[in-house]
Amino acid sequence: MKAIQIVKPGAEPELREVEKPTPGPGQVLLRVTAAGACHSDDFVLNTPADNFPYPLPMTLGHEGVGVVEQTGSGVDSISEGTAVAVYGPWGCGVCEFCSRGMENYCSRAQDLQITPPGLGVDGAMAEFMIVDDPRHLVPIGDLDPVRAAPLTDAGLTPYHAIKPSLPKLVGGTTAVVIGAGGLGHIGIELLKRLTPSRIIALDVTEEKLAFAKEVGADEVVLSNDDAIDNVREITGSDGATAVFDFVGFQPTIDIAMGVVGTLGDVVIVGLGDGEAAAKVGMFAQPQEVSVRAPYWGSRSELIEVINLARDGVLDVAVEKFSLDDGVDAYRKLAANELRGRAVVVP
Amino acid sequence: MKAIQIVKPGAEPELREVEKPTPGPGQVLLRVTAAGACHSDDFVLNTPADNFPYPLPMTLGHEGVGVVEQTGSGVDSISEGTAVAVYGPWGCGVCEFCSRGMENYCSRAQDLQITPPGLGVDGAMAEFMIVDDPRHLVPIGDLDPVRAAPLTDAGLTPYHAIKPSLPKLVGGTTAVVIGAGGLGHIGIELLKRLTPSRIIALDVTEEKLAFAKEVGADEVVLSNDDAIDNVREITGSDGATAVFDFVGFQPTIDIAMGVVGTLGDVVIVGLGDGEAAAKVGMFAQPQEVSVRAPYWGSRSELIEVINLARDGVLDVAVEKFSLDDGVDAYRKLAANELRGRAVVVP
Amino acid sequence: MKAIQIVKPGAEPELREVEKPTPGPGQVLLRVTAAGACHSDDFVLNTPADNFPYPLPMTLGHEGVGVVEQTGSGVDSISEGTAVAVYGPWGCGVCEFCSRGMENYCSRAQDLQITPPGLGVDGAMAEFMIVDDPRHLVPIGDLDPVRAAPLTDAGLTPYHAIKPSLPKLVGGTTAVVIGAGGLGHIGIELLKRLTPSRIIALDVTEEKLAFAKEVGADEVVLSNDDAIDNVREITGSDGATAVFDFVGFQPTIDIAMGVVGTLGDVVIVGLGDGEAAAKVGMFAQPQEVSVRAPYWGSRSELIEVINLARDGVLDVAVEKFSLDDGVDAYRKLAANELRGRAVVVP
Amino acid sequence: MKAIQIVKPGAEPELREVEKPTPGPGQVLLRVTAAGACHSDDFVLNTPADNFPYPLPMTLGHEGVGVVEQTGSGVDSISEGTAVAVYGPWGCGVCEFCSRGMENYCSRAQDLQITPPGLGVDGAMAEFMIVDDPRHLVPIGDLDPVRAAPLTDAGLTPYHAIKPSLPKLVGGTTAVVIGAGGLGHIGIELLKRLTPSRIIALDVTEEKLAFAKEVGADEVVLSNDDAIDNVREITGSDGATAVFDFVGFQPTIDIAMGVVGTLGDVVIVGLGDGEAAAKVGMFAQPQEVSVRAPYWGSRSELIEVINLARDGVLDVAVEKFSLDDGVDAYRKLAANELRGRAVVVP
Repeated sequence: MKAIQIVKPGAEPELREVEKPTPGPGQVLLRVTAAGACHSDDFVLNTPADNFPYPLPMTLGHEGVGVVEQTGSGVDSISEGTAVAVYGPWGCGVCEFCSRGMENYCSRAQDLQITPPGLGVDGAMAEFMIVDDPRHLVPIGDLDPVRAAPLTDAGLTPYHAIKPSLPKLVGGTTAVVIGAGGLGHIGIELLKRLTPSRIIALDVTEEKLAFAKEVGADEVVLSNDDAIDNVREITGSDGATAVFDFVGFQPTIDIAMGVVGTLGDVVIVGLGDGEAAAKVGMFAQPQEVSVRAPYWGSRSELIEVINLARDGVLDVAVEKFSLDDGVDAYRKLAANELRGRAVVVP
Repeated sequence: MKAIQIVKPGAEPELREVEKPTPGPGQVLLRVTAAGACHSDDFVLNTPADNFPYPLPMTLGHEGVGVVEQTGSGVDSISEGTAVAVYGPWGCGVCEFCSRGMENYCSRAQDLQITPPGLGVDGAMAEFMIVDDPRHLVPIGDLDPVRAAPLTDAGLTPYHAIKPSLPKLVGGTTAVVIGAGGLGHIGIELLKRLTPSRIIALDVTEEKLAFAKEVGADEVVLSNDDAIDNVREITGSDGATAVFDFVGFQPTIDIAMGVVGTLGDVVIVGLGDGEAAAKVGMFAQPQEVSVRAPYWGSRSELIEVINLARDGVLDVAVEKFSLDDGVDAYRKLAANELRGRAVVVP
Repeated sequence: MKAIQIVKPGAEPELREVEKPTPGPGQVLLRVTAAGACHSDDFVLNTPADNFPYPLPMTLGHEGVGVVEQTGSGVDSISEGTAVAVYGPWGCGVCEFCSRGMENYCSRAQDLQITPPGLGVDGAMAEFMIVDDPRHLVPIGDLDPVRAAPLTDAGLTPYHAIKPSLPKLVGGTTAVVIGAGGLGHIGIELLKRLTPSRIIALDVTEEKLAFAKEVGADEVVLSNDDAIDNVREITGSDGATAVFDFVGFQPTIDIAMGVVGTLGDVVIVGLGDGEAAAKVGMFAQPQEVSVRAPYWGSRSELIEVINLARDGVLDVAVEKFSLDDGVDAYRKLAANELRGRAVVVP
Repeated sequence: MKAIQIVKPGAEPELREVEKPTPGPGQVLLRVTAAGACHSDDFVLNTPADNFPYPLPMTLGHEGVGVVEQTGSGVDSISEGTAVAVYGPWGCGVCEFCSRGMENYCSRAQDLQITPPGLGVDGAMAEFMIVDDPRHLVPIGDLDPVRAAPLTDAGLTPYHAIKPSLPKLVGGTTAVVIGAGGLGHIGIELLKRLTPSRIIALDVTEEKLAFAKEVGADEVVLSNDDAIDNVREITGSDGATAVFDFVGFQPTIDIAMGVVGTLGDVVIVGLGDGEAAAKVGMFAQPQEVSVRAPYWGSRSELIEVINLARDGVLDVAVEKFSLDDGVDAYRKLAANELRGRAVVVP
């Protein structure tokens, strides 16, 4: 079968002919119907050889959707022919975090060398893929596979980031989203639909700000040196109740800390290398701000995200590629030439 | 191997020689080190033949502890030789409730004919037992198996019942426990250790009330016609913030509803056949009482209960029996002659 | 000044000339700009004389909006000229519930004989009214007084009823609203805007069902003997995650209990005299349903409701009357001839 | 009457004769029975003159307990003769935070120039004090005033810091307390009594560690360069679920960040000038740590703390001084010569 693999650190991925896998006991073989390309793939592709964490060659793709082609022995809970999305952050399934479905925080994954598909074992950028356990599958019904694939990361990650802040986002509050790209635009959609808050979006170009408005932002502000003042002019002295930074470099984190209000949340989702420091002291303002940096999401959250998409609440902007053109998708991703999420359809 | 089986509805269970099972793909074989006998077993034993829900003969025991003897193919997440407790309310592992570890509320178990061990498939009252998936195992370390076995139901059920009420049970509040038996006495221990609330325990004999005091009750009241007045004399007009009824027949539920206060919780844990009706209306007092009737518990809650026992917070009263005497344990259970939980040690 | 007062139990209210009140220390005098008429007023009007709980004559109106006309001595936290809504369920301000702003559950109100305006002391159906403390006022900015007045009860009560269930109402769930009248239609609007749930509305006429659809219901079902089956056909075996019964008589409560699913909420908001009984027992289905019957709402919830209306999230249907026609408003209310909430404008 | 006042920035406080105040409308006059001295008083005493934020002279003392001597006009909710503790972080009572009793975060206090007693207006270090509103009083019943006074800050502040983390502190988790002084030792007591977590306490002397063990720490570790390794040896790779830093300088914050585990909380309570930075990035370990820096506490939390003390759950270590010796108490406070909290008894 065909697969897009990373063969050499620092080099472009390659379209290769590899053997079609067979599901072992407890495993599931999927016929892939869509696979999303993600900035973290690009991050992996550019990891230097001496620091490269995964065995090679490795099929890329941690955002996978497919149809159950064959189940390994002992698999009773899913039937052949079912259309499914793949929950990516695999864990041991047994530890305390996994027992709550938070396999993204599995406490034994590192020791047991368990990794997500496409980030340590062969992923979804192929005609077929192996899923290690049926619990990592979520039925998608008749949801379009192309629109479903990005939900598994680009949808799940902002949802997980936003969900703990929902109880605070009541009538009269403001939520700020920094970065209206692949994850950020979904963050705006989620906030628009799940909260009554006023949403202020920030990005660096007018084009991006126009896109932010299209997907639901009430107000937009250029992310520059005046950003804090401009946001504060909208929020007044109360500041924002929650700020979601989908960039994560120091300048955006500084904006986040500059516009948040008392008892507010600052949530760093982007993979930048900035630091968000909680202010301390008797006269520190604003008070009791919470800062957190979440990673991916839980199994039940993926089910909820899939449900939101089926009900039309969420709609991810995508660009479609064939498997033969998949390498090109990664090229455009690296060059920042994509408007929506790149999805490869085998 | 030896097993205590139910062979005929309405008859006593029997000690029988059966074949030692072999684990299939994805399954785990345990050498049983302790198995608890439960009132719900007794309930099953007395179910009329025309209404009997399970295939026969069936090995009893849904409270199991053992050592991993052999793993089926495809099982990587648990090693042979590990001492474990069995999470009993098995589900599909895939549906929304299961994805959060709440397999006790699996939405597909009925359709897929998945049942707990000892309540539909062979259980723990034998030298060996099959566990269908490693996710249903919780390592217990060096915790005494005899003390660990009852935790899987008699410990987990009250813990799950109490946990959602913990945020309400702040300083100055009162918690009421009705029934100081197998589950109730653990409820008292949990409330004593996990909350600063004053605990009032009710039961029908002075002996039971003395036992309730031993395990942590601050005040005790006989469960009779004056019970509401006597409890209200202690709580004053505020009433109780949470009432846990481990009996569940109409008289105890009426007491529960009679002593609870505004915004309080009434939690029916017992398997009686009473009904708890939320009061409605503009002048109803007390206001916004919540009534719920939980069932068993979640996977993460079992991990927490095991941890509590390892740290000495929980201590279940037990009476020990050999497998050969196991039938006798069920006799005493039926006759209400046990002081603690009956645990059979193969 | 003019005031609509209840003079005799069982009789119609009367438009009377009374003395304009003066604010004492700590009090605030409002010039009333709008006052809502409520079914509970009707309930009071029909209370038999020997059972009548309030001193007479008494000005009606517990839904009040106005402008601060004069502040009593010691009042610093609100300025004359501010447009405000009146938080109605007055409490002592000091007890534990009041300390969290839940004056609707004040534990000392009865002892201290503190009552809401219009339900024990003179209310808002007059040219001026006294508010006992500035903390019972919420600034409304430029929100239309006529649309603001009903928010203080017809808006606040469903909001308080719905808010604790919001965390459960995630993607893919169903919320059921029984009764699309004064409070129910606001419940539908709130659920539509604050959750991604599918909303099923029930009422007894096609006209009411059409109104339910207008304000946001996704599906409507006639509230009759087939209602449970018809709702279950939409929800499938999962049932509803939350059911809000704005009627509260036994037939509607039976529907609520019949359509709710596992771990679901049944919330009785209506002032009927039905009873909702939590089901108990090992084979009870669905499991761990919570039943509660809330009353009015908290101070912070009123602030949130006002904010929702200012941001256009909430829009209450109203019919406007002058103070001179106010008695007529009560007549139409009693005859069920109002389409929206009756609001009297002095 | 006598009062201990700050007269000049940078100078020692003075015992002075001042006029006994009279309560205005809505106010309450207390006869003070105990007043606590706090490190933040010392902080104020040492604020340079050009930066000094309060009018002078000013009576010190934001931890006050007394008996209601006289109520101003319009005060109905508290009776003369009632023994009460004073809630210190006064707010407007009307804004959104105040409406939930979180006057510590009042959004209008700064604009309205509302300050706590002893931190802007005359405080509790006197024979009598004015409390601006009865809602700032919590009845203490027969609780010893000397033990009650420190609860209003030294008790309330750690309680407010710990409470949001309680749901995470389940069986098998670890809580770390850095600093076993005035607030820290109460933090240890609270964690010991309200959670089943293992508690590790850190401080800089063996004497302080012995004190930490006395009040409930399970393990103690010297706060030095090896502290992270030594704590991690106890917790294993899971790390701590919550870390409470009652010091707040960079070295202790670094320890806090070094010992916390995945999904853990870092709570900075101390008034040091350190910064706690949430780690960001795909390979950051541990993941989704929350960092927050709370300030004082809410009205309902003070009620809960008072209740805990009445029930014997909390016991603050104190040293007693007469009003005549009060200046000496401040001297010892500044010199770090106190073992417990200094409480002045007029």
